[in-house]
Amino acid sequence: MKKIKVSIIGATGYAGKELMKILIKHPWVEIIHLTSSSYKDRSIAEIYPEFLSKIDRKLIDFDPKLLARDSDLIFTAVSHTVSLEIVPKLFQEREDLKIIDLSADYRLKDPLVYQEWYKKNHFPESKEFLTKAVYGLPEIYASKIKQSCFVANPGCYPTSIILGIAPLLKYHLVERKGIIIDSKSGTSGAGRKLSFDLHFSECNENFKAYKIIGHNHIPEIEQELALIYFRKEDLEKGKSIKVSFTPHLLPLNRGILSTCYLTLKKIKGEEEILEIYKQFFQNAPFIRIFEPPNLPELKFVIGTNYCDIGFRIDKRTEQIKVISAIDNLVKGAAGQAVQNMNIMNDFPENCGLEF
Amino acid sequence: MKKIKVSIIGATGYAGKELMKILIKHPWVEIIHLTSSSYKDRSIAEIYPEFLSKIDRKLIDFDPKLLARDSDLIFTAVSHTVSLEIVPKLFQEREDLKIIDLSADYRLKDPLVYQEWYKKNHFPESKEFLTKAVYGLPEIYASKIKQSCFVANPGCYPTSIILGIAPLLKYHLVERKGIIIDSKSGTSGAGRKLSFDLHFSECNENFKAYKIIGHNHIPEIEQELALIYFRKEDLEKGKSIKVSFTPHLLPLNRGILSTCYLTLKKIKGEEEILEIYKQFFQNAPFIRIFEPPNLPELKFVIGTNYCDIGFRIDKRTEQIKVISAIDNLVKGAAGQAVQNMNIMNDFPENCGLEF
Amino acid sequence: MKKIKVSIIGATGYAGKELMKILIKHPWVEIIHLTSSSYKDRSIAEIYPEFLSKIDRKLIDFDPKLLARDSDLIFTAVSHTVSLEIVPKLFQEREDLKIIDLSADYRLKDPLVYQEWYKKNHFPESKEFLTKAVYGLPEIYASKIKQSCFVANPGCYPTSIILGIAPLLKYHLVERKGIIIDSKSGTSGAGRKLSFDLHFSECNENFKAYKIIGHNHIPEIEQELALIYFRKEDLEKGKSIKVSFTPHLLPLNRGILSTCYLTLKKIKGEEEILEIYKQFFQNAPFIRIFEPPNLPELKFVIGTNYCDIGFRIDKRTEQIKVISAIDNLVKGAAGQAVQNMNIMNDFPENCGLEF
Amino acid sequence: MKKIKVSIIGATGYAGKELMKILIKHPWVEIIHLTSSSYKDRSIAEIYPEFLSKIDRKLIDFDPKLLARDSDLIFTAVSHTVSLEIVPKLFQEREDLKIIDLSADYRLKDPLVYQEWYKKNHFPESKEFLTKAVYGLPEIYASKIKQSCFVANPGCYPTSIILGIAPLLKYHLVERKGIIIDSKSGTSGAGRKLSFDLHFSECNENFKAYKIIGHNHIPEIEQELALIYFRKEDLEKGKSIKVSFTPHLLPLNRGILSTCYLTLKKIKGEEEILEIYKQFFQNAPFIRIFEPPNLPELKFVIGTNYCDIGFRIDKRTEQIKVISAIDNLVKGAAGQAVQNMNIMNDFPENCGLEF
Repeated sequence: MKKIKVSIIGATGYAGKELMKILIKHPWVEIIHLTSSSYKDRSIAEIYPEFLSKIDRKLIDFDPKLLARDSDLIFTAVSHTVSLEIVPKLFQEREDLKIIDLSADYRLKDPLVYQEWYKKNHFPESKEFLTKAVYGLPEIYASKIKQSCFVANPGCYPTSIILGIAPLLKYHLVERKGIIIDSKSGTSGAGRKLSFDLHFSECNENFKAYKIIGHNHIPEIEQELALIYFRKEDLEKGKSIKVSFTPHLLPLNRGILSTCYLTLKKIKGEEEILEIYKQFFQNAPFIRIFEPPNLPELKFVIGTNYCDIGFRIDKRTEQIKVISAIDNLVKGAAGQAVQNMNIMNDFPENCGLEF
Repeated sequence: MKKIKVSIIGATGYAGKELMKILIKHPWVEIIHLTSSSYKDRSIAEIYPEFLSKIDRKLIDFDPKLLARDSDLIFTAVSHTVSLEIVPKLFQEREDLKIIDLSADYRLKDPLVYQEWYKKNHFPESKEFLTKAVYGLPEIYASKIKQSCFVANPGCYPTSIILGIAPLLKYHLVERKGIIIDSKSGTSGAGRKLSFDLHFSECNENFKAYKIIGHNHIPEIEQELALIYFRKEDLEKGKSIKVSFTPHLLPLNRGILSTCYLTLKKIKGEEEILEIYKQFFQNAPFIRIFEPPNLPELKFVIGTNYCDIGFRIDKRTEQIKVISAIDNLVKGAAGQAVQNMNIMNDFPENCGLEF
Repeated sequence: MKKIKVSIIGATGYAGKELMKILIKHPWVEIIHLTSSSYKDRSIAEIYPEFLSKIDRKLIDFDPKLLARDSDLIFTAVSHTVSLEIVPKLFQEREDLKIIDLSADYRLKDPLVYQEWYKKNHFPESKEFLTKAVYGLPEIYASKIKQSCFVANPGCYPTSIILGIAPLLKYHLVERKGIIIDSKSGTSGAGRKLSFDLHFSECNENFKAYKIIGHNHIPEIEQELALIYFRKEDLEKGKSIKVSFTPHLLPLNRGILSTCYLTLKKIKGEEEILEIYKQFFQNAPFIRIFEPPNLPELKFVIGTNYCDIGFRIDKRTEQIKVISAIDNLVKGAAGQAVQNMNIMNDFPENCGLEF
Repeated sequence: MKKIKVSIIGATGYAGKELMKILIKHPWVEIIHLTSSSYKDRSIAEIYPEFLSKIDRKLIDFDPKLLARDSDLIFTAVSHTVSLEIVPKLFQEREDLKIIDLSADYRLKDPLVYQEWYKKNHFPESKEFLTKAVYGLPEIYASKIKQSCFVANPGCYPTSIILGIAPLLKYHLVERKGIIIDSKSGTSGAGRKLSFDLHFSECNENFKAYKIIGHNHIPEIEQELALIYFRKEDLEKGKSIKVSFTPHLLPLNRGILSTCYLTLKKIKGEEEILEIYKQFFQNAPFIRIFEPPNLPELKFVIGTNYCDIGFRIDKRTEQIKVISAIDNLVKGAAGQAVQNMNIMNDFPENCGLEF
């Protein structure tokens, strides 16, 4: 195989940093350009001494011509709304480019929904890429990703939640109403931007819920759960799923653990459910199903690309409780992006991700 | 007023330690005996150097005769099942004793329910104290506590949960079915006993759910919620409330934050709900109601006897989400016990608890 | 006794916040004005919900006329260089005012030394207050503080270090050369100002030294150690003490632990040294001396006004190692300021500080 | 190259666990046996779910015949004094075995010194291996390690300290007297054994010094520094170096940062010193020298095999302060052991260690 040339837009954010950490050890990748709006002309090791003697490269400004010309594949690790402009510009320079977008801008298929939750309209140029974009959750969309040149990398919360409960919805084992998801995330999920909430003295020894109404990952979760649950004709009739989602901030660096509450249509044995999960994910190298009563914990997934899933059935309340855990920067961002890159380029799916 | 003579059974556990911290500054308390099965004959400051020059007292063995003779009031800060034996022995020595029991043994009014959840039968001697015991949640039972000489101090999780949602159930604003409670507790809630799960390297930077089916605080929560929700005649018909409860372990020392999900019978404005909460708790000095969109955080309650309560209404899902926060060692244990002591002795309710 | 009227300049910084927490429970204090340049016209509870139902007061701008008129005593909890202007303005409005300055501006008696380390010249108006200012370390200067109306409250590192080794220097038990101090501080010592270094994800699970050459607490430490060690005539000859000081940043909220290395002139027994420490601090209610081999730990002092001191003698290297620990926001700032206020006003030294 | 067969004695301790994590990805290693006295007959993934689908192997009891027969190389990751018995037994079974011992038992060349600091006598059988053992610090002893079949892997504190100051001693740039080392270690350094000191609630938000007199890493540090500083004839005359060493416990999982204080014989420029360090370590792939004023931090080395070294010259006190940082479980234990294995087997020195 030949190495592919890869660039990163937004290399100094936490997702960009994690991408660099993974890509410098990926056997089929050559890192070409790294852009940063805050640190241009400085070297990576100046910003992050961890990369001393690892990456010897200066950060540059965003330059679509240069980036498209020199790269086979580009990761756009930027905040939402930024990719609305960036992605069309890059594809305009070169049609056969591959892009994996880590922002939220191309995840929602309906631009009106995007507008409602992100308070920003798609541009005419960006809107046309909505249909091209494949939602990059390999455990569900591997074959589409394989043929795509533009992947919308899923959000961190949605990754943990959709993977955690997809089999239950797929086989209609649970009511689609009344789904409640209580998620807890480490601080790196909030990014590198300074804020009083993330000031060490304020965050340490603290715990809180935030954005408990209207977090903008909700439409992404609901879109994907509906696609899993409904037949095409029902979707066309406008059928939908609504979830109650509440994120919390943990005083630790990395990881998302989601506790999902669903009502079983019919009480089943835990072994039966276990079997269904195992089959659903039989070809997914990064899913680990825990046998009840064992349950995932953050420490088992931190620094890995795994999504760990466990569950218990509560006969008293006729509920199934599902616990899923990921590293928000790996399976929830950079690792999943590389997993998508591997699939798009016919590399082994776990290439460079076994750490 | 005259000082009362107070002893603590189990003074070196975390609840006992917190009791000592509060009582040494309480103006109407004289500490008499401190017992410890693990450290008898040693001084407190040897075990906890924080008490250097604060308490000059040797730990003694449990001696009911001595304790009952010398004390007006005794706190039993012991593990569940231990109080089954201890409490009858103490009352046998002296009938006009006052006892505040921090174990779970006298919280459940039905000994069969106790047996089911704690895998232990009441003794004939202990069973008779079940009817004497008042559930020590002052915001609900202040007048009963005032006349009682035996208080069963509530559990930490139940305190945060019952206080958080009592007004909604009292006024039947929510469905009694489908109540879901997702609680998160700091490590001191697990006590002082060593375990691999609480070994620093295992617990730090980790987060997990535990006992997600069948935690033994469930019957206590359900008993009290039913007493709030149902009329006497319905209770006698055996009507009950079932909740789904999932505790999690936070990598921090103190605090419980409970996120409660309830379905509104009828969508109401947040101001209307706020008013209902304020009235319900108008005489409760340790309840702080947050005006939406503000929400409690652990750091606001740590080291205090407050229970902070906030909520938001989610119109999309017709839910109300309630967040309540307490310090598990204060309002969830020792502070609430002292609050009960104050009420039982006609001291001001907040005496010694304003720190 | 009559209550005194107290105002705080800079009430929303961490030292100001701690002052409020202490003063609202102080029996002889009435809080009058609270100023904040960042949050004027907002209420305290808006900024810090912990103060809900505790302080009902709006933050105001700095107004020397108003402040001086209404207050008996003012705490200036501001950054260094700010007090150079503020203090003269306040005293100009009212001569019989009492001021306790928590900045570094009046700690160094020699304005040239101040200029060298703080890169800022004293104003003519501020310079005249240098001679008036008493260094507010009550364990050394209680009688001067008692008669003073202007106290320069010591820095957090200097407090832990000077108290830790004062007896050794006073009685010339150690060489004055080669003193090495390795200090470790929690993050609140760096204040409330946002910085990448104090961003939770950067600071958590990290540890580092900082400003290892030229930290501006050095001249304060050296000035005070020299005053303890030398006779007046030697000081006038320009004799001085030089220490090697290295601060480190701990990933925790509060506390300073200093490890001090000194060479013994003559090996002595630990009991003998213990006796010397006990006598030196016999009237100091906030000093706790640990008997070897026991040693201070941060958790024993956090949330208290104590300075805990322990030591061991290393015969192999002829050294004495002294460990001292304080809460940087209490004994290292607000608590010590209140201790000074108590002494200046003839209140009991520990009034309001027993928590 | 052919894979070598490797076994681990003590696989479930923290060092053993880290060895497994590294070795499962090492291209030239096949893991054969894993022993554990506490968990025999159980699978690794039962103890550490992180290894689910990574290692499928049952833990066995220590069986020298079996282990020696099946393995080319054995890591003994056991507590000190245990290797005194184990190592001779293994070599007895097979002479051409390679052993890397992670205990302290063969680091000190003088059995009397061992006896003095570890309170245990060498056996006649173990004593003869003292001369065979090579001290496994590759940056100093690479050529000896290459030819050895028995390596005593250095302690974590000694690794950080010896590497940090070796160039200064080698070239006699500093006084050999008065060396002071103030080290801070994360909790994993204390191992997996439960203790009250490492109970989360006791350790979190705390910081303390421990074993400040007589830590048993001192003779190891002094032995190696003397070997670097003195010529052979001086050593034979009994010349030695004494250091003052004080370890502290950090409330974080991994990492050691040592702050070393040495007196310069002659003040030099920082550039000159920098050049000396760079040359000294020019062939050392795991040493990173920081250019002043940059300094190492724990987060740069955590999860890596690097030893980061920085320094500053303090002209006021004629000192050089050296800061060195390692991950105690990697460069301080398992990583260094694998580095030694690589050298002993002619693998590239950094093979399997670039993560």
